[in-house]
Amino acid sequence: MFLRANERKIDKKENMRGGDGTVVMGSFLPEEKLLHTRLISKIELAPGCSIGCHTHEGEFEAFYFLEGEITLNDNGATVKAQPGDFSICFDGENHGIRNDTDKPASLLAFIITKAE
Amino acid sequence: MFLRANERKIDKKENMRGGDGTVVMGSFLPEEKLLHTRLISKIELAPGCSIGCHTHEGEFEAFYFLEGEITLNDNGATVKAQPGDFSICFDGENHGIRNDTDKPASLLAFIITKAE
Repeated sequence: MFLRANERKIDKKENMRGGDGTVVMGSFLPEEKLLHTRLISKIELAPGCSIGCHTHEGEFEAFYFLEGEITLNDNGATVKAQPGDFSICFDGENHGIRNDTDKPASLLAFIITKAE
Repeated sequence: MFLRANERKIDKKENMRGGDGTVVMGSFLPEEKLLHTRLISKIELAPGCSIGCHTHEGEFEAFYFLEGEITLNDNGATVKAQPGDFSICFDGENHGIRNDTDKPASLLAFIITKAE
């Protein structure tokens, strides 16, 4: 299966997980069931946008940072993530992200679950 | 868990899956066991480098294309992948990649397995 960047399914989410502004989620997840996977998305954060801190249970979420600087709350530790950096929110941990800059920022996210 | 881009574990593989040249695999996979996941890597293909066509069984592999143009054999179909494009090699399918250009190319890859 091959998808062009502009074929991802765009979903705009306001105040996601209690965060600020409108987050653009661009899903690459195919319609057919994909082994243990519930999300594969490019997440775009305009200046000032955020996804509030939330916990993952029975799954993990990985972030690969693509563009701009993103302030990551990584299970309580705050880091300024740059393009090429990577994070995992392990099962039972929590994380949140914020664009505190005046430039666009984005990352690739995927969530892998215990469920079939 | 947070890793800077330069903290990925570099492994150089020659003639990978029967391909040409030396492929640079940069792993972000943590040492602790990660649910259903056997690979999370930035793959770098210098000009002329390739990973030969191979089949995935009991797992799938996703590619998010980061840099340069990569010629993808996606289960028999040939496409020229650009940054932001995405592909999945489903369980039982095959794929291969080649950098036919004179510029560097890279992608992020992850493999999700049926196994625990």
